Formats: sequence, structure tokens, C-alpha cells
Amino acid sequence: DVAGRVVAVVDVLRASSSIATALANGARAVIPGENSEAIMTWSKAFDRREVRLAGERRMRMIDGFDLGNSPLEFTREAVEGHTVLMTTTNGTGAIAAAQGAKEVLVGAYVNFSPVAAVLRAAARRGADVALICAGHEGQFALEDAACAGRFVRHATRRVAGATLNDAALAAMQLDRKFGDDRWGLFETSTHGQALANAGFAADLVACATLDAHPVVPVYQDRQVVRLGAPAEA
Amino acid sequence: DVAGRVVAVVDVLRASSSIATALANGARAVIPGENSEAIMTWSKAFDRREVRLAGERRMRMIDGFDLGNSPLEFTREAVEGHTVLMTTTNGTGAIAAAQGAKEVLVGAYVNFSPVAAVLRAAARRGADVALICAGHEGQFALEDAACAGRFVRHATRRVAGATLNDAALAAMQLDRKFGDDRWGLFETSTHGQALANAGFAADLVACATLDAHPVVPVYQDRQVVRLGAPAEA
Repeated sequence: DVAGRVVAVVDVLRASSSIATALANGARAVIPGENSEAIMTWSKAFDRREVRLAGERRMRMIDGFDLGNSPLEFTREAVEGHTVLMTTTNGTGAIAAAQGAKEVLVGAYVNFSPVAAVLRAAARRGADVALICAGHEGQFALEDAACAGRFVRHATRRVAGATLNDAALAAMQLDRKFGDDRWGLFETSTHGQALANAGFAADLVACATLDAHPVVPVYQDRQVVRLGAPAEA
Repeated sequence: DVAGRVVAVVDVLRASSSIATALANGARAVIPGENSEAIMTWSKAFDRREVRLAGERRMRMIDGFDLGNSPLEFTREAVEGHTVLMTTTNGTGAIAAAQGAKEVLVGAYVNFSPVAAVLRAAARRGADVALICAGHEGQFALEDAACAGRFVRHATRRVAGATLNDAALAAMQLDRKFGDDRWGLFETSTHGQALANAGFAADLVACATLDAHPVVPVYQDRQVVRLGAPAEA
């Protein structure tokens, strides 16, 4: 239950990383959709030239879409000034499901520090902070839990009175195990292995780069926008 | 999804530990029920002198029942020759939900080695083995995950071709972290803390004792019986 909580949705491989990259590269907003039909329906509200359709199924770009789910595709050339309509197997659904939380952020390693700072500010003012791990095809994903553990550690360090639930403690243990060896983390995880085997090793490198895109994506009114961005990008 | 799998349900604090204790002390069977109404309904199929009604809500024995959920209560005097009808907040529901698996075992630290041996035999013959962590009030419980990680480690060590999913890898990491410091594990876990605060510290000691009750509880035909027990105990 997310009501009243400050939530960060973590889908390291790859939706969170791609969304942070898109916003850092000037996308106006990313609108998550449940499936390609939802995306096509949404797209009718826009001038087709304003939007980019993005997303994947079984790791691959969806037929007729402009972009897949590789962070490397969300270049400035591809997304600047555009609204990205996006559907992925795990991440976008997890973001949409967080609707109703007090605040919803989207976090990964590529935008770790600024998101951690926002979570820490929330924890210091006594807010109930939750990390939501999107996972991989409905299963627990090692890389999301490890990244969430890092968020927990940074958000609660020396915050007086902070209490952690068992899942947060376990996630911190995974972060401690892998430390900054994100390559080892991705090599160990099922999803990381699947992406490497499918030819997306470069995506793993991109998703492993700490603070490559220091933006705080916030989900509000059914779209993800950059925290602190001017109303007109 | 449990179909076709060999499953071990883990509810260290306290249902799995209590069930192992009851069977080790001569209970004929433990029948898990969803709630106290289900238990009362089941009980009508028995001579009242044959059964023991057991279980808890909010850690306490249910009004009108014979036993709570403390493993220390399931003495030979209390359970020998009896069928135990049992409902607990987490564990009994998890066992009942595993109905449909190829085999369902009930595991904890108190019966670790024999259950691990059965899981290992299953893994060696190529069966799909799953650990189900009952958790605590619908939440991830540290002690169940750590115990599950120990089962995974013992069941798959030097088993050629064994593959582990991310959750299994994470659980093993927790087992590695706490090692044989089960007291530290219970002191860290939310449920362990709650039990200690509610006056059940002695239960924690009982649940921490490795192989105190070397039985393999198997769930079949809606009752948990001791593997290898004669038809008439």
C-alpha cells in the first residue's frame, strides 16, 4: 500500500534507467502505459510529431514504435522536446501502480544521488519512505533489490529514529555484498544475463554508470517529469 | 506457481517450528486451517478427545483453543497420538496454498538437516525445487528468507547443473550474513523483535536450535504428517 508514502520505483534494467536518460536528454515527459494498445490510444491525444513511442516486450522494441527500452536509444536527438509514451514489461506498470502515493520518484543507478537526496530529505522530515522493486517478469530481481538497498542506506544514514523493515535490511545486505561492482551484480542477475545474451551488454554498461544522468523523475498526473524542470522545457 | 515442484514452506517463527515439534513428539498429523472457524468445522469430524486445537492471532492463543503457536507447548504430553488442528497468521495459510505441488515439506531450523536432505535428493534428480517463505503479516520476513537461503545452499551444493533464481541468490546472501548466529538473526527481524517484546523469548531459543526435531513434515491430502512414519503412529 503506497498511500501517504514517498515511493521510489526501481527498475534498473532498464525502465528506470531509460526514463532518467530520456528526461536528462530533454524529453518533456514520459507517460507510462500498460501495453502497446494503451500507448496507441494515448498517442491520439498528441500531434504524432510531438511524441515518441517507446517500449519493449521480451526485451525487443515493439513493432511500429520509435524506440525500444535501451537507455542508449534515448539520446537528445531522439527525445528532446518530445513526450515519450512508454510501455515495458515491468517498470512502467510498477510506476503506474504507485499512483496514489504522496510522491512517486523513479530511481536507478544512473540517477542515484539526486533521488537518494530527495528520499533522505523525506526520511528526515519523518515521512514513510518505500522502495518498490519492479522485478523481472513478476519475479524478484537481484539488481533492483541491490539498488533499493543502496537507496535505503543513503536515505537513512544518521537519520534519527529511522526504522527499517526486514525487506529493507535484506536489500541493504545485497548492496553491501556487491558494493560498487555493478558489473558483477548484473552478471549474477537473471535479467542481466538475459540482456547480455540478447546482445544488450552495452545497456548494462549504461545502466551501471552511477549518476550519469542526475535527474529526479517524478510521476504525477500520470506522467513522469523532471523535478524542478521549468514548465516549458 | 507450485505445480510440479518440490516445495518447502518455511515459517521459522513459529508455525514450521511448531509443526516439526508436534510431529517429533508423536502428533499423528497437523491439519492447517485458514481461521478458527475452519478449525472448529474440521474438529467436528473427530472425537473431541482425539484432537488438539492450536494456533494464534496476534501471537496469542485463540480463545477456546488448547494450544497456541509456541513450539514449547507441543510437548509429548500435549500432542502424542492426537491430531492437531492448527491456524496461524502466516504459516498454515502458506502450507495450504502449496496444495498442488508435487511434494510439500515444512521446514525450519529445528528440522533443517533432514528436510535439506530431501530437497537435495530432489535437486539431484533434476526436480524443480522451490522455497516458500511464509513471511510476517504479508511482509517479507528476514528469518524465513535466511533459513530458505540455508536450504538452498545445502540442497544445491555440488549439484551439477543446478540454477538458482535471483531470490534464491539473495536468500543465500542473508544466510551467509548471519551464519549460525540465529539469535542475531531473530534480534534483527521484525517478527523476532515482536515475539521477544511479547514475552516469547523462550520460543526464539527453541526455534533457533538446529535439528532439535529431525523430522520431515510432508503435506498431503490436506494434512501434515511425518515422512516415513508408520501408518499407525
